[in-house]
Amino acid sequence: MSSNSFSDLTALYINGTLKQSPRTSNTRGLMDVSINIMQKEGVNVETLRLVDHQIPHGMDTDMTDYGYEKDEWNDLFKKVLKADILVVGTPIWMGTISSVTKKLIERLDSKSGELNDKGQSIYYGKVAGCIVTGNEDGAKNCASTVLYALQHMGYTIPPQADTAWLGKVGPGPSYLDDEADAANHEFTNKNTTIMTYNLMHLSSILKAAKAYPPKGNDREAWQDGTRWAFEKPQLTT
Amino acid sequence: MSSNSFSDLTALYINGTLKQSPRTSNTRGLMDVSINIMQKEGVNVETLRLVDHQIPHGMDTDMTDYGYEKDEWNDLFKKVLKADILVVGTPIWMGTISSVTKKLIERLDSKSGELNDKGQSIYYGKVAGCIVTGNEDGAKNCASTVLYALQHMGYTIPPQADTAWLGKVGPGPSYLDDEADAANHEFTNKNTTIMTYNLMHLSSILKAAKAYPPKGNDREAWQDGTRWAFEKPQLTT
Amino acid sequence: MSSNSFSDLTALYINGTLKQSPRTSNTRGLMDVSINIMQKEGVNVETLRLVDHQIPHGMDTDMTDYGYEKDEWNDLFKKVLKADILVVGTPIWMGTISSVTKKLIERLDSKSGELNDKGQSIYYGKVAGCIVTGNEDGAKNCASTVLYALQHMGYTIPPQADTAWLGKVGPGPSYLDDEADAANHEFTNKNTTIMTYNLMHLSSILKAAKAYPPKGNDREAWQDGTRWAFEKPQLTT
Amino acid sequence: MSSNSFSDLTALYINGTLKQSPRTSNTRGLMDVSINIMQKEGVNVETLRLVDHQIPHGMDTDMTDYGYEKDEWNDLFKKVLKADILVVGTPIWMGTISSVTKKLIERLDSKSGELNDKGQSIYYGKVAGCIVTGNEDGAKNCASTVLYALQHMGYTIPPQADTAWLGKVGPGPSYLDDEADAANHEFTNKNTTIMTYNLMHLSSILKAAKAYPPKGNDREAWQDGTRWAFEKPQLTT
Repeated sequence: MSSNSFSDLTALYINGTLKQSPRTSNTRGLMDVSINIMQKEGVNVETLRLVDHQIPHGMDTDMTDYGYEKDEWNDLFKKVLKADILVVGTPIWMGTISSVTKKLIERLDSKSGELNDKGQSIYYGKVAGCIVTGNEDGAKNCASTVLYALQHMGYTIPPQADTAWLGKVGPGPSYLDDEADAANHEFTNKNTTIMTYNLMHLSSILKAAKAYPPKGNDREAWQDGTRWAFEKPQLTT
Repeated sequence: MSSNSFSDLTALYINGTLKQSPRTSNTRGLMDVSINIMQKEGVNVETLRLVDHQIPHGMDTDMTDYGYEKDEWNDLFKKVLKADILVVGTPIWMGTISSVTKKLIERLDSKSGELNDKGQSIYYGKVAGCIVTGNEDGAKNCASTVLYALQHMGYTIPPQADTAWLGKVGPGPSYLDDEADAANHEFTNKNTTIMTYNLMHLSSILKAAKAYPPKGNDREAWQDGTRWAFEKPQLTT
Repeated sequence: MSSNSFSDLTALYINGTLKQSPRTSNTRGLMDVSINIMQKEGVNVETLRLVDHQIPHGMDTDMTDYGYEKDEWNDLFKKVLKADILVVGTPIWMGTISSVTKKLIERLDSKSGELNDKGQSIYYGKVAGCIVTGNEDGAKNCASTVLYALQHMGYTIPPQADTAWLGKVGPGPSYLDDEADAANHEFTNKNTTIMTYNLMHLSSILKAAKAYPPKGNDREAWQDGTRWAFEKPQLTT
Repeated sequence: MSSNSFSDLTALYINGTLKQSPRTSNTRGLMDVSINIMQKEGVNVETLRLVDHQIPHGMDTDMTDYGYEKDEWNDLFKKVLKADILVVGTPIWMGTISSVTKKLIERLDSKSGELNDKGQSIYYGKVAGCIVTGNEDGAKNCASTVLYALQHMGYTIPPQADTAWLGKVGPGPSYLDDEADAANHEFTNKNTTIMTYNLMHLSSILKAAKAYPPKGNDREAWQDGTRWAFEKPQLTT
């Protein structure tokens, strides 16, 4: 049902690099390959480098309630709500996602109790992917952490929704370094392309279907006692 | 545009318990709650307890080529191919998925190079969820491992596609034990219901859309040089 | 060889809670059980709530070189160097360690290239443990992330070096809430006690042994060509 | 107080490869580098390829009680008990440890309730390390899973107790393949050497110290009401 045009879609790419602008982010380097495809396909793309903003640690709606001078999260969150597609980029440190990316997950999670007018999580109908770079190891673990969290909150995950670039084990060049020759890394290029198209395809499909019907996932209806076909189990060992 | 009827859908529930039939599987206990919903909604459900079958460890198509007397995987795999929906159930041991569930992932992975007639992974268009039980801790980690692997191979993951039952930290009753009173565990019941409906909704939506168009994810086309909107990056630090 | 007195030992407990003082930290609640044991045994204990300090994200020695007004890490790191025992406490968010705890690991990692006078990582001879709290799930995964990182950098990990308190799956009371009745949670109390004593025992043992001899782990000697009994393998499939 | 001689030590290397003998195991290739060092240092080394033996899935002492014809685990477990040092080798599949390695952890875990004559886990006083190979990604995640489980059961983990070889991301040569040129991979060689020596050093140190005193970790004493310096917390939010 997906049309060939993706021009009605909007995407947000959030970079979880530890480095503030204008420092070079290798993760952004790989994100650009995906961004470029989306833009050529007509998607309206926005980008965000989280570490450039003042986002306190915390699980509360507005951390200025707890003594912080500034909390830009609620403003930035509007971009999350507006986007059909969310792509999270993260560098790898010690085999796991960056502390900035983890903070992003926490702040997204703190909003996951908010419901749309069908009684579903506000993330329903949106799709998500993950881009990882590092000079050695941990890409699958990082993508697993990110994609798990996003689906658990309400995002839909298309097939092959993660891509990564890694060098050989041990210290070595990063994605943007000349000696990495990453531009010619067929595997990363292919996976980035597949991920990017699948995000667009699935977003189009969900848009055409008007996302998820509320049957069985309307949390307000559940709260009110609706159970659909669910039956309390008769358990016995 | 999922219809209200799910009677054209087929689902396969694979149980990664370590216990052979007819021993009681607590994981199967929670799986039954989901299975019951699907059956009441008209889905054609099949179940499989992997440990009841002879499935050697290995990444090869047929392990009888390597000295094993029997390898039932290829027969069982036909059920995987036939099912629109795959639900993997796993117990938790030492905080991670069971060795049987890991073997399932390995054998599924060994087939992930097979392509459909659009040049996509044969798992494209199928959706997956995960059910976890244990008497203490590790549900998110297990679901993360399972769902990551399945999306990486080609499955689509709907929102909130995991559910779990856990007791308090430390040794304690299991899901089916009377003292666990799991039948009244609201959180698990709700999440199981949401997961089950989202699997059916997304499967219906993908079926109506005839799954994914091949643009950007046709691996044979990539092999032949098609690049769609992908452009080789001009990298420089 | 461990004497019965631990009064020559120093310990640092770092709390990775997202909440700044004076907000209540449940993680600190469980940490206090362990701290109390150490203090009664004569250990010199210091505590640190990381989120109370200005610690920018980043992998550089001093982040004020990159535009941050303040970076307290180098001062705090002196406490890490002084302590024989490091205990990291973390809350669980979305099944994984907090962003504050991840930032701690990053900053510790950024120092892991520093060597002692035997050419070993400066963390050699120190021991580490992990304390986790959450109201449902993820303790083993968090402890695994923390303890793996610390041993990879040079800490020694004693047996059963992690302890946790979790409520039942789903929202529920936290460690310090009356209804949790956590004070009577035998399993958590026992594991906290075991962890705490094993940290003290192993620290005493390593101290008496003057930590690790440099044979085979002196990175400067390796750099200079020393190989001890290592032989370059003759590899062939 | 490690002497310069390691000739009183015994080590067991268990290979979690999916391939039965005599198929080539790349993981064994890297294990041999470590084994060679230990043997040259006088350690008594034994090796075990788990998949060559009939080890049913299960958490029970002897799975022949549950209908399996054969269960070699109890015999093999004698080797585990005899060894001062345990090194687990695992290949990576889908970013995580192999199903054979997971089965090993399960079977070791099923024995972790057994106590020595001090009332401690029978693994107390033993040390463990982990060796990982794969052609792309997941080494830290695998080592984290293995080392976490082993310390949780009672092993002590020395500094830098994991080593790995990985190729570049995507399909590519394995450790033993000529084009991998792994013999010259400085990082892997160095880490393998460091890990191997630290296992021997720590094992010697623990042996000289007669392992852990029972204070605080004697589970039978806890069971009988001994609490040492533990005090039940007075909790309040």
